[in-house]
Amino acid sequence: MTQGLFISFEGVDGVGKSTQVERLKDYLETLGRTVVVTREPGGTALGSQIRYLLLHGGDVAPRAEALLYAADRAHHVATKIRPALERGEVVISDRYIDSSLAYQAGGRELTQMQVRELSQFATDNLWPVRTYLLDMSFEQSRMRLTGKPDRLESAGSEFFIRARQAFLDIAQAEPERCCIVDASQSIEDVWSAIKDDVEGLLS
Amino acid sequence: MTQGLFISFEGVDGVGKSTQVERLKDYLETLGRTVVVTREPGGTALGSQIRYLLLHGGDVAPRAEALLYAADRAHHVATKIRPALERGEVVISDRYIDSSLAYQAGGRELTQMQVRELSQFATDNLWPVRTYLLDMSFEQSRMRLTGKPDRLESAGSEFFIRARQAFLDIAQAEPERCCIVDASQSIEDVWSAIKDDVEGLLS
Repeated sequence: MTQGLFISFEGVDGVGKSTQVERLKDYLETLGRTVVVTREPGGTALGSQIRYLLLHGGDVAPRAEALLYAADRAHHVATKIRPALERGEVVISDRYIDSSLAYQAGGRELTQMQVRELSQFATDNLWPVRTYLLDMSFEQSRMRLTGKPDRLESAGSEFFIRARQAFLDIAQAEPERCCIVDASQSIEDVWSAIKDDVEGLLS
Repeated sequence: MTQGLFISFEGVDGVGKSTQVERLKDYLETLGRTVVVTREPGGTALGSQIRYLLLHGGDVAPRAEALLYAADRAHHVATKIRPALERGEVVISDRYIDSSLAYQAGGRELTQMQVRELSQFATDNLWPVRTYLLDMSFEQSRMRLTGKPDRLESAGSEFFIRARQAFLDIAQAEPERCCIVDASQSIEDVWSAIKDDVEGLLS
């Protein structure tokens, strides 16, 4: 049986993750692999309900928020990701543990170590074999958005810059797992960088 | 200012916790204390929604379940219990950490240490100054229920006996915090035992 393969995509909103996830899915399917594309939060039915609570539940205490994200992840891993990997499929997740580290730790009352330990408990220590961090600067992301103000602009540069740096720090600390891709390139060039790396993974 | 006082009640369903919680509340109010009675799961608005997910969300992976209970507890402590204690009030919670240890650990895939660590994270290590464990045997609880089969009977003796023993083990390991009360006595006698202990706590 083919071995399962778990890949995640990370990066701040608006860097083009979903486009590249689809590219990678199509490519792997042409190679005959069965591919499950999923996402966090909300990759399962229970997860969608948890996601709804996080978005509409009013003020959520920081520890409760981190625990709800971890609960979503635990259910996601146990009911969707692990079973697919055990069937020898490829799982591509749009966001995974690194997003919790980048967004829930640091700025608020929680340390990155605490959030990491929660995720390790939640997933029974399941990490992707490869994580693609799509990276671009705030200025580059603004150029992409010219003329249509959205969440990114209203949230402001400070949030973007802090999250971007957190993702970069995580990726630089784990070069075996993480591959940083310059997302300010054209879609084709971003895809080409990912494809080159994936070919190495598969061989 | 008066010092806050945090008390929990534990024990399997049907041993008379809510009756004794009300007795204790009334008694402390006659002493001029402000008393907040609360419960887990579901002691806050967010907690009620989490409780709904736990009861109606279909199959929930064991780690996700433990994390959802911990999220409920984190929000409960941060938004309700700690603020009341900081105002110098008495908080009485119908179930707290011991219920997670008794029900979520052991029988399933999680160790008691893992569940304890989750709760310690969730609460930032807030433990009650006193926990009353209302204890009775399966036979005694059945006698109380004669003629009206309910959850206890349908869930069966094995579940009851395992949970009862888990509660006893926890209470015996922490005699400073936990007070085991023979709940097979009359309501008056149970209350008398609790009242004697509380008077010691207050003095």
